[in-house]
Amino acid sequence: MIKIGLLGLGTVGSGVYEIIRDKKDKLKKATGKNIEISKILVRDKNKDRGLNIDQSILTENADEIINDPNIDIIVEVMGGIDKAYSYISKSLKNGKHVVTANKAVISLHIDELHNLAKENNKGLLFEASVGGGIPVIKGLKEAIKINDVDNIKGILNGTTNFILSKMCDENLSFDEALDLAHKLGYAEADPTDDVEGYDAARKISILASLAFNTNASISDVMCRGITSISPLDIKNFKLMGLVAKLIGSATIDGNEFSASVEPILVDESAPFASVKDAFNIVSVEGCTVGELQFYGQGAGKDPTANAVVTDIIDIINESYKEYEYICNDSIKSGGTKLFKGNYYMRVSPNNVNEIPKIVNNLNKSGLEFKVIESDKDLVLITEQISSDQMEAIMNDLDLPQNSYSYLRIESNNISSIHDIDFGNTDSFAM
Amino acid sequence: MIKIGLLGLGTVGSGVYEIIRDKKDKLKKATGKNIEISKILVRDKNKDRGLNIDQSILTENADEIINDPNIDIIVEVMGGIDKAYSYISKSLKNGKHVVTANKAVISLHIDELHNLAKENNKGLLFEASVGGGIPVIKGLKEAIKINDVDNIKGILNGTTNFILSKMCDENLSFDEALDLAHKLGYAEADPTDDVEGYDAARKISILASLAFNTNASISDVMCRGITSISPLDIKNFKLMGLVAKLIGSATIDGNEFSASVEPILVDESAPFASVKDAFNIVSVEGCTVGELQFYGQGAGKDPTANAVVTDIIDIINESYKEYEYICNDSIKSGGTKLFKGNYYMRVSPNNVNEIPKIVNNLNKSGLEFKVIESDKDLVLITEQISSDQMEAIMNDLDLPQNSYSYLRIESNNISSIHDIDFGNTDSFAM
Repeated sequence: MIKIGLLGLGTVGSGVYEIIRDKKDKLKKATGKNIEISKILVRDKNKDRGLNIDQSILTENADEIINDPNIDIIVEVMGGIDKAYSYISKSLKNGKHVVTANKAVISLHIDELHNLAKENNKGLLFEASVGGGIPVIKGLKEAIKINDVDNIKGILNGTTNFILSKMCDENLSFDEALDLAHKLGYAEADPTDDVEGYDAARKISILASLAFNTNASISDVMCRGITSISPLDIKNFKLMGLVAKLIGSATIDGNEFSASVEPILVDESAPFASVKDAFNIVSVEGCTVGELQFYGQGAGKDPTANAVVTDIIDIINESYKEYEYICNDSIKSGGTKLFKGNYYMRVSPNNVNEIPKIVNNLNKSGLEFKVIESDKDLVLITEQISSDQMEAIMNDLDLPQNSYSYLRIESNNISSIHDIDFGNTDSFAM
Repeated sequence: MIKIGLLGLGTVGSGVYEIIRDKKDKLKKATGKNIEISKILVRDKNKDRGLNIDQSILTENADEIINDPNIDIIVEVMGGIDKAYSYISKSLKNGKHVVTANKAVISLHIDELHNLAKENNKGLLFEASVGGGIPVIKGLKEAIKINDVDNIKGILNGTTNFILSKMCDENLSFDEALDLAHKLGYAEADPTDDVEGYDAARKISILASLAFNTNASISDVMCRGITSISPLDIKNFKLMGLVAKLIGSATIDGNEFSASVEPILVDESAPFASVKDAFNIVSVEGCTVGELQFYGQGAGKDPTANAVVTDIIDIINESYKEYEYICNDSIKSGGTKLFKGNYYMRVSPNNVNEIPKIVNNLNKSGLEFKVIESDKDLVLITEQISSDQMEAIMNDLDLPQNSYSYLRIESNNISSIHDIDFGNTDSFAM
């Protein structure tokens, strides 16, 4: 009998509880063991959860679980940062395996917690922290066994993907799409974490750390959200056959890596463009296996709980031992210089007389670009330029907030400004 | 030291040899063991392979490998059926683990070979037999640990996907696209196995067997290829916003499953539509995890060899034991009755006077349908109908070979004949 202590009985916790309750036979077959949730940490023991749980296993005191010598595995699905971190850390020290869905804690403490797990000869798994039900961490760990993985990227946030899908497919403005996301429960009351890209940044920092054997912290991830994308941009993207997606990317060259979360333009026929609404996708590029993509539900009770239970199985079967995370301190962030591409850029100044001045400043920067529209809004495509150079140029332009957008183009059809069909420029920016 | 006997040193065999030679450190880290290829079966010992292999490990006699008590794992990548089957079977009996890329042998003998492996307490893995480098068999086995997987489908053949991509994107005819595939090495001298769907049928039979705990033989897979799709069809598909893909599908209801390989029309914005050229994709639908998709290179030396070496790692780490295939004899094919949808149908009779007769016969069958064009070619969309009923109707029509095509529509936008935009019917079939 394997005894599990569950920290948290919210959406994901309830899902984990239900799977372990309802899939006893499958889990027995997969592990050879009976699995039981023996204690559950809740905030309020008396709240009715409609789960028909034996009240005696509920506790409001985490120590009762973490210090229980009979409990083998701690499953942390309570969310938050400080308390969760402290419980995970104590559990490992107490010689318990830990499974968590907590991207914030893992992103902040990936190296330290792995070391703690290793010292105590225990497993630390967190499949549910990235991509919900998609087995992307396992897929990445498998790839790394044979491959150097030099590139990894993904649509990692369902809320922003839902908003961009609605802006693109139903011509909603950002605000209208956000309202809809709120109504349908796809967005938090305060959507900052999602729309500014911070949620995706935590996830790409975890993936980059595993892929590159480094400790990519959230401050290593250049982060730009989607709030500046306007209906005019969306119209222009369509004319170019491109789709905007908020993509977390990480790439490595030698001992330096670049990581970012930013809206990127992809071909409308590319696999990433087909990822709609709250689905996620992750692409892993290995030196022998080539590109692999993993797609599925990036959030939601059952898919996320499924990922947690998969980790529990891997703990029991000891297959977590097959992959060891070793942080190589010589591998460091090199800013965003490894990302390179043509950029789409739009500036909508309050006064159109500003446009010649902006064009003039851009010319002075030495950047080559092709202006598509310059009557009311300035719309242009730049030459191929590295991300850090583009950021510097945009900084120097010092444009008023919310008056501009710029997105890197990752297209198989566009590799230079001459590939844009300028025969159609009359249609742009009208 | 783990000793491997390699049967075959063609494209995949050379790839396996190179990975094991060049990735010693990674493999040591992943398994804790040193891995060595100690004997290789070749047809001609004296052929120069440019691999700088110690000639003394080459043999033309399979028994020298299969009966070698020092060899732990047999890797069969020689292809063919009878000999390969006999070697795999003997190796298991001799107490050796087996890794194979042989879809034909696995599809034919999945139950028997698993039983042999079990009796001898050895592993039998075949990740490379489906989807090249894509970890789809592992992904499926992982999903099954928790989920009932009731639906599985995929683009499983690179040759036909290349041909359809070229027909669709570059307006080539089937013959022109096949010629191009020949020139680029994407098609065999005799392309029958690919274009008629037999290759994909072997793969979906393997996936269905694993997903449903059954022995889905190739004769359980209704198989229709892509040779009948005409440039006129491609034009019509585009007008409807649909893309034709050769898809292997399997679904189960109770104790009956349906399996097929056939061209299917998907939305041009769907993930499957974005899979171009020789890439593959597999979709697995689980009851808790929802839909997962796995995408990558479906063939080629390095990706396929990568899958073989992944299996070798899983044999050494004994993680193959986590999943057990048990064939449940009560689960049987129920023909294709579980597949249902609207169908696109085109008939191009030699004599247009045939058209009213065909329409009349269709009316007599009781099928509801909407004619889009009937001047020169007959083009129509049927009501939702099950696949077995549609096959019966097409049989009864008894049309001359190569004069017609029909494809089921799997669309989120079209669920009845009224969803087709008939305002545009003037553009059809011109």
